[in-house]
Amino acid sequence: MERIRVAIVGYGNLGRGVEKAIKKSPDMELIAVFSRRPAAALNIKDEKVAVYNIADAEKYVDEIDVAILCGGSATDLPVQGPQFVRLFNTVDSFDTHARIPEYYETMERAGRESGHLAAISIGWDPGLFSLNRLLLEAVLPAGSTYTFWGRGVSQGHSDAIRRIAGVKNAVQYTIPVAEAIERVRKGENPQLSTREKHIRECYVVVEEGADQERITREIKEMPAYFADYDTEVIFISEEELDRNHSAMPHGGFVIRSGETGEGHKQLVEFSLQLENNPEFTGSVLLAYARAVYRLNKEGERGAKTVFDIPLAYIYPGLPAALREKLL
Amino acid sequence: MERIRVAIVGYGNLGRGVEKAIKKSPDMELIAVFSRRPAAALNIKDEKVAVYNIADAEKYVDEIDVAILCGGSATDLPVQGPQFVRLFNTVDSFDTHARIPEYYETMERAGRESGHLAAISIGWDPGLFSLNRLLLEAVLPAGSTYTFWGRGVSQGHSDAIRRIAGVKNAVQYTIPVAEAIERVRKGENPQLSTREKHIRECYVVVEEGADQERITREIKEMPAYFADYDTEVIFISEEELDRNHSAMPHGGFVIRSGETGEGHKQLVEFSLQLENNPEFTGSVLLAYARAVYRLNKEGERGAKTVFDIPLAYIYPGLPAALREKLL
Repeated sequence: MERIRVAIVGYGNLGRGVEKAIKKSPDMELIAVFSRRPAAALNIKDEKVAVYNIADAEKYVDEIDVAILCGGSATDLPVQGPQFVRLFNTVDSFDTHARIPEYYETMERAGRESGHLAAISIGWDPGLFSLNRLLLEAVLPAGSTYTFWGRGVSQGHSDAIRRIAGVKNAVQYTIPVAEAIERVRKGENPQLSTREKHIRECYVVVEEGADQERITREIKEMPAYFADYDTEVIFISEEELDRNHSAMPHGGFVIRSGETGEGHKQLVEFSLQLENNPEFTGSVLLAYARAVYRLNKEGERGAKTVFDIPLAYIYPGLPAALREKLL
Repeated sequence: MERIRVAIVGYGNLGRGVEKAIKKSPDMELIAVFSRRPAAALNIKDEKVAVYNIADAEKYVDEIDVAILCGGSATDLPVQGPQFVRLFNTVDSFDTHARIPEYYETMERAGRESGHLAAISIGWDPGLFSLNRLLLEAVLPAGSTYTFWGRGVSQGHSDAIRRIAGVKNAVQYTIPVAEAIERVRKGENPQLSTREKHIRECYVVVEEGADQERITREIKEMPAYFADYDTEVIFISEEELDRNHSAMPHGGFVIRSGETGEGHKQLVEFSLQLENNPEFTGSVLLAYARAVYRLNKEGERGAKTVFDIPLAYIYPGLPAALREKLL
């Protein structure tokens, strides 16, 4: 079997998630990991996988079909996206919502110039959730869409707590409000405020002698991150954090509550319950790497999102087999 | 606004569902209904909608952009599909699973020859459920997929009961077994027999003096339809059937229970809870009519399924707006 030659760019939780997904995909082969760190620091067990410096990427254009960019949206992807799509087909999980139009334009232009294809903002939100929002709003134009996240760890919110003086470590869970979901599932189409949709639960380890009252106040009053939510702060020991809060579960729901004809309620729900968020996200990125490779072979270039890619392209089988087996 | 000119072919429950969906879609316009029956028999209230005989379809090629075929898969679509795609772009809900490959080939060839595009096997199963099966198996290659249907009315099973001697009328509900769904949602990945997944509940009206014991036996022993299921038969009056069983609810679940890395469980579920099945199915057909119209304008011809059509094409907005609003 011809295998698609994949590189992982950035070897954090997401990069390791992609690595594990490749092992379950017989049509994929991990050729290299690009990192800013030296090979020894990455501790990759498979000897056939090379470790290259991100700065040397252009030396390896003949070795790799698709580069999966696993860096963060704040500082890594705005630089690495355009850099890598000039050399390879790419997949990334760019998720800074307000900057997606700008990032799309950059990747579209760079990909068209180099002849490569970039799948941007891939994952589950943006990604599979976006795809369901579009699908369900197209099918049920009269109605309301609700997205709930959790129960799961939000890396961004955990980081925000860690930046507070006196905090040693923290894990933040985003939790959807059960009552709100219940009302939506009943077809009530409620107007829900930010506070009514999610609560935030923070497990915090402090430095010795730190002022817990001040830290609690700083968390609860933090604009955008916590001020608009009911937030609970629980101080625990480092040992307890490691023991009970080092897993990376997540999940969520997209619900479209629509109406057809004369008031017939139609409810559609797409939900995820993930024991390991980066491994699932990595699996989504890898499936779209397959699409990017195939579409580029057919002459597609520039940038695409989940909205633009026919799903047949992400599946290993051939179209006729798909129709027979899955339709 | 340029509106897409739609025709409905066959004016039963599904055709009326499409008609209602068009009223909620400002970019669509119902031009005509094709039927074998005379206009007076259809009782269409909108005077701007023409009623044409199916046999005269070729007279109207300049009036219509997309014909939505709302006939049955057993005898209507195998004839009407090729006939209409020679004249118009089409959408249909062909759902005789074993014959999909053959039907696809016929429509693909006829569409290529005439320059039109056909979206075949559109609806929710085949259709949205198929799309989710593909998506989730591509993302989670290690795992099991489960499809449950109901609680809802199965037209085919109701018809089968009506053909038994002494039966005046009947409505059959397909009901998923709650315990089976529970086990799947827990990630147990059970092997489930046909009997363990669904039960069948039959509300039957008999002619005066009919032998209820014989009818019960004939239903429960009917091969393929009922023999492999736990089936309950309830005899009721015509009045009760009309009062309590004339709605057309349906629904179901696609669940992918997968695993990533070293045993991390990942559960994804897509579910429908429909108060009116033909109206929902009609809404899906109409959304894909939009895609067929646009893709054909871009030069696509032949046949496509939900696997082949990028979702951006089913949504009324433009790609840039989509990315900003729904991604």
